[in-house]
Amino acid sequence: MARSDGRNPDQLRPVSIQRGWLKQAEGSVLVEFGGTRVLCAATVQGEVPRWRRGSGLGWVTAEYSMLPRATNTRNDRESVRGKIGGRTHEISRLIGRSLRACVDYKALGENSIVLDCDVLQADGGTRTAAITGAYVALADAIAWMTERRMCPGKPLINSVAAVSVGVVKGEPLLDLCYTEDVAADTDMNVVMTGDGAFVEVQGTAEATPFDRATLDRLLDLAVAGCEELTLLQREALSA
Amino acid sequence: MARSDGRNPDQLRPVSIQRGWLKQAEGSVLVEFGGTRVLCAATVQGEVPRWRRGSGLGWVTAEYSMLPRATNTRNDRESVRGKIGGRTHEISRLIGRSLRACVDYKALGENSIVLDCDVLQADGGTRTAAITGAYVALADAIAWMTERRMCPGKPLINSVAAVSVGVVKGEPLLDLCYTEDVAADTDMNVVMTGDGAFVEVQGTAEATPFDRATLDRLLDLAVAGCEELTLLQREALSA
Amino acid sequence: MARSDGRNPDQLRPVSIQRGWLKQAEGSVLVEFGGTRVLCAATVQGEVPRWRRGSGLGWVTAEYSMLPRATNTRNDRESVRGKIGGRTHEISRLIGRSLRACVDYKALGENSIVLDCDVLQADGGTRTAAITGAYVALADAIAWMTERRMCPGKPLINSVAAVSVGVVKGEPLLDLCYTEDVAADTDMNVVMTGDGAFVEVQGTAEATPFDRATLDRLLDLAVAGCEELTLLQREALSA
Amino acid sequence: MARSDGRNPDQLRPVSIQRGWLKQAEGSVLVEFGGTRVLCAATVQGEVPRWRRGSGLGWVTAEYSMLPRATNTRNDRESVRGKIGGRTHEISRLIGRSLRACVDYKALGENSIVLDCDVLQADGGTRTAAITGAYVALADAIAWMTERRMCPGKPLINSVAAVSVGVVKGEPLLDLCYTEDVAADTDMNVVMTGDGAFVEVQGTAEATPFDRATLDRLLDLAVAGCEELTLLQREALSA
Amino acid sequence: MARSDGRNPDQLRPVSIQRGWLKQAEGSVLVEFGGTRVLCAATVQGEVPRWRRGSGLGWVTAEYSMLPRATNTRNDRESVRGKIGGRTHEISRLIGRSLRACVDYKALGENSIVLDCDVLQADGGTRTAAITGAYVALADAIAWMTERRMCPGKPLINSVAAVSVGVVKGEPLLDLCYTEDVAADTDMNVVMTGDGAFVEVQGTAEATPFDRATLDRLLDLAVAGCEELTLLQREALSA
Amino acid sequence: MARSDGRNPDQLRPVSIQRGWLKQAEGSVLVEFGGTRVLCAATVQGEVPRWRRGSGLGWVTAEYSMLPRATNTRNDRESVRGKIGGRTHEISRLIGRSLRACVDYKALGENSIVLDCDVLQADGGTRTAAITGAYVALADAIAWMTERRMCPGKPLINSVAAVSVGVVKGEPLLDLCYTEDVAADTDMNVVMTGDGAFVEVQGTAEATPFDRATLDRLLDLAVAGCEELTLLQREALSA
Repeated sequence: MARSDGRNPDQLRPVSIQRGWLKQAEGSVLVEFGGTRVLCAATVQGEVPRWRRGSGLGWVTAEYSMLPRATNTRNDRESVRGKIGGRTHEISRLIGRSLRACVDYKALGENSIVLDCDVLQADGGTRTAAITGAYVALADAIAWMTERRMCPGKPLINSVAAVSVGVVKGEPLLDLCYTEDVAADTDMNVVMTGDGAFVEVQGTAEATPFDRATLDRLLDLAVAGCEELTLLQREALSA
Repeated sequence: MARSDGRNPDQLRPVSIQRGWLKQAEGSVLVEFGGTRVLCAATVQGEVPRWRRGSGLGWVTAEYSMLPRATNTRNDRESVRGKIGGRTHEISRLIGRSLRACVDYKALGENSIVLDCDVLQADGGTRTAAITGAYVALADAIAWMTERRMCPGKPLINSVAAVSVGVVKGEPLLDLCYTEDVAADTDMNVVMTGDGAFVEVQGTAEATPFDRATLDRLLDLAVAGCEELTLLQREALSA
Repeated sequence: MARSDGRNPDQLRPVSIQRGWLKQAEGSVLVEFGGTRVLCAATVQGEVPRWRRGSGLGWVTAEYSMLPRATNTRNDRESVRGKIGGRTHEISRLIGRSLRACVDYKALGENSIVLDCDVLQADGGTRTAAITGAYVALADAIAWMTERRMCPGKPLINSVAAVSVGVVKGEPLLDLCYTEDVAADTDMNVVMTGDGAFVEVQGTAEATPFDRATLDRLLDLAVAGCEELTLLQREALSA
Repeated sequence: MARSDGRNPDQLRPVSIQRGWLKQAEGSVLVEFGGTRVLCAATVQGEVPRWRRGSGLGWVTAEYSMLPRATNTRNDRESVRGKIGGRTHEISRLIGRSLRACVDYKALGENSIVLDCDVLQADGGTRTAAITGAYVALADAIAWMTERRMCPGKPLINSVAAVSVGVVKGEPLLDLCYTEDVAADTDMNVVMTGDGAFVEVQGTAEATPFDRATLDRLLDLAVAGCEELTLLQREALSA
Repeated sequence: MARSDGRNPDQLRPVSIQRGWLKQAEGSVLVEFGGTRVLCAATVQGEVPRWRRGSGLGWVTAEYSMLPRATNTRNDRESVRGKIGGRTHEISRLIGRSLRACVDYKALGENSIVLDCDVLQADGGTRTAAITGAYVALADAIAWMTERRMCPGKPLINSVAAVSVGVVKGEPLLDLCYTEDVAADTDMNVVMTGDGAFVEVQGTAEATPFDRATLDRLLDLAVAGCEELTLLQREALSA
Repeated sequence: MARSDGRNPDQLRPVSIQRGWLKQAEGSVLVEFGGTRVLCAATVQGEVPRWRRGSGLGWVTAEYSMLPRATNTRNDRESVRGKIGGRTHEISRLIGRSLRACVDYKALGENSIVLDCDVLQADGGTRTAAITGAYVALADAIAWMTERRMCPGKPLINSVAAVSVGVVKGEPLLDLCYTEDVAADTDMNVVMTGDGAFVEVQGTAEATPFDRATLDRLLDLAVAGCEELTLLQREALSA
């Protein structure tokens, strides 16, 4: 079966990682996975949330949001509705957990880094693009701190990248675009470290429950996709 | 390594499923996984959400909540804070998705079933206990509808059960209690159908990223745990 | 006129007071007035609200809530609606005032006790059942504090119990169940101390304004009902 | 014991009822009980709330609020805090119930009347002043409707007036001003119809529980006070 | 063209400024511009907002609101809706900025003055009446502080007054009443100091964009109107 | 006095208008005024707000927002705070009013156009950049509708552009950047049509009230700035 954009089942969309897109943020990246475009901004704050004060440990958190017209039809703003939806909460928490997997809190000292991931245009895989881009913004923010000798140690102990996989019309596919995503029977987001361990595995049977063999095949695709994204992150950071 | 309550690594806590705990709900279950106690109430509504009207299809949704003193220290009510937290949203969505996996919307007709899962006492695994109990309440509610000839077909096409697994001090364990949960390096919730397929796999590296072999071992434990819970659900429903 | 459940006009419904229903709360009671079932949890906090700090005085407060399917048809959660309704506020305030009538703030020291009263099943008289049960949970929490020598004195100076009375089809009745409550012309909630003084008298003419003689007859019924509940509280506490 | 303003225990403060204070409302009253000053506006709406449509019956409701600087120190606006406090809810509900006691819904037809009671200056007894003034605004609004032949019958079947009573330093007093109110051991608000029946009796032991004899004495004072207010309402309406 | 109330194009409505309308506020004014009636209360607070603490400087702020039945048809309360509308925010900010133009923060010391402007009756020009009245309440509050030696200097360095102007059916008019306001092509609010300088100029083309000559003519009218209001403020303050 | 970026007092910053920045919106523009970067998206909706239904007339509205890290230090999201601030409301309303000045509602038919203006990077003049960019997005959206024959007539009857002017250290300047804006004594935003008429004039004395001569000089600068922006809009639209 051919994919709508002609890709092979195990092929990522064109990925672009532009660093320094915002001149005022300590780290910032405009990341694109095909038509998905997310602006990731890292903010360094010289303090930690109240529950962590005096611990000597740092903190990393994230907020995800989507502009109202990032999608094909307009969505109301969550600020106008007066509350944040479940999906937004869930993805913000996922991004935060994922990035915390590559940080040594002690080496960070009592500093916080907030990752704002705003989807400017959505075409599937916004959360995985956000994690992949936010890691690069985080790395830049930590480099900025290191230059200013703000950290007692080397806080960046790993990298993280993320990709979606899914089963569409019976076929396991890597990095679903929006039309594939809505047609998927099973949808899985996988977050991995740069050295190949799992940080998050979130698989959902949207329509048909899936068996162990399918799960294994999806994990294979995701592992390969994350490896490729890890290389692209390294390239971007060494540019 | 011995577990705090003396269980084997692959052993569930004592499970209790009491049907008909509320006299007014169309289905209701007080489910206990050890010290975790969740009241699941199924409400039948003769209409569907606006976006689904006229489709001829039914809908199933869920709301999860915790009483303020379900836990060891008191938490503020979300109604008092004026907003629902991210965790609550996330679990409500998980329970809803899980239960929708065992329902044929067409056979349900334009009816909704709401599953309210209120945690009266929490000792780890509240979301998996909620799913396991809510399935039984759902089955009772559908039986209630069937008696009244409200459904055009047989809406219940499968069963679902859920269990948590995790790695504590290097050892994969089934059905974590609260003290194990906080000590876990990796935490995974698995939802399965009665015929052994996956509905949800949500694994998170709380502290240390995990490798593929660990993931496989955790899945093995979860599969066996869900099989056992499926039998307990059947027993409860045939009582 | 016969009552729907065959009771005499001056007869309470079967009352059950189960202590220690929650293993983690400092005091907890599952109280039942017929089909009304309220879970009362007392939480001890080693501090007082800001406006009371440094006064040397303690504080007692309460929060009342109803599970969505406690009633015959489902009600939306107040956490989902994003605000607490007037009725909930009003009852929470009533329970708090009632329990404060049996506490010596000075003897309590700068500690707070929060009484969470969650209605699991509603069949009329939920606020009076909540007060009656919460008193027992409060007594257990104070005993817990006394064992730990947390209080400078003996904070429990009285007991409180509460009951509803009303006029249904011209006849004054004690302890209305739901069907009686909706049919009542006048509805009154009375809170009394264990030594027979009034803490709250709240009478409302739902349909027909009432005269002084009716008011007197309702108070007679309530006084007798509270006396009986006081005995049941004592029994429960001495068990 | 002398009262701070020299009144006898059974004496009302000077009462003023100015009709037509707002030129655009269908009924409006500026009511004063001593230093307490409440603006009551009645709005006629040619429809009823959704739950009452098609019933042929009318509806009456009320909203109570206090300007931020009605009191001796400034209170934050509830609109700024983003939610309405329990006290405001409770009083709004009380005013609404009280006024509904003098209206025949059938004679009103499917029309609503909203009574807005805004406290411009507070010196105790704001809720009882509000009820007493709102009744006059309601009567004017119904007269306005009757002139326009909007009602199928004569909706005004009674009048209501309200007054507070309380025990201060052991002495039962009528119509407490603010300094008396804060010093009161027991505080009671009584709403009565023009023909001397009770609509609401809300007595609260602020500090010391009260006995039956005290309750009776307070009721005596309230009955006499409401009679006097009823006369003042009639005078105002015939002016 | 004759104005509906017979005024000349450059004529203000009858203006009334009653000081001391509230007995508890440090400054208070009931201001009337024709049928527009605004209650302005000034509250002195012996502290400043957190972001200004330790600066030695004072602060002045304002809150504007409208009673639900100030207008011809009833508006829902913003406290009931749970949020403040854009118009309310905008006018509150305008009033605050305007009054800050006549205060020397250093001379005020670390004290705040809050101006509450509540529209009791609206007939056009509520924001300009509010500013004009609030200035007088502010002056009284500062006099109150000066008597108590609360300020390190003389905080009142100027006066402010405000008026609306607009183009109705091609004719520039001063001080629009409500019916003129809704018919206006252009609407402008002008705030000026007592010595004739501009604090705010807010002109909006409601229907037809306006040219420079019209803008100049409107400014001429506004300048004259503010001068007249300044005199009325002085008279009121010297009474 | 030299400006920080070397511009003349009457010189705009480099302006860039990129059309079609979003592939899914009916019109979209990334507009830059120096370091200020705003993404403007126009959404066409085939219906109007409820209050306008059946009128045969269209509607245009706007929402302004700023990403949390658009500024030099991070601001909390309004969606997280749960309410929209006064400044956001005020600017959204200004943008909406400004764009409505160039639309013929009758020719638009019963369609709405929503302009979302999201500030990605802020360096002064975000609201004027938003208006200038949103006009181009609006023109593209109307062209899109015209192609699809959705409009009964030619809705675009004019163009609008906006610029800020202000007095910094006594000198009137055009198009203030952020550092100039915070240093300004007077700040004015001017919105003009393509044919040179005023739509909005909003001048505020931040520190020192301003005289008529200064007002005239600021208007001169703004008129020239808006003319230049109008040309740039035409160029962008003809590209």
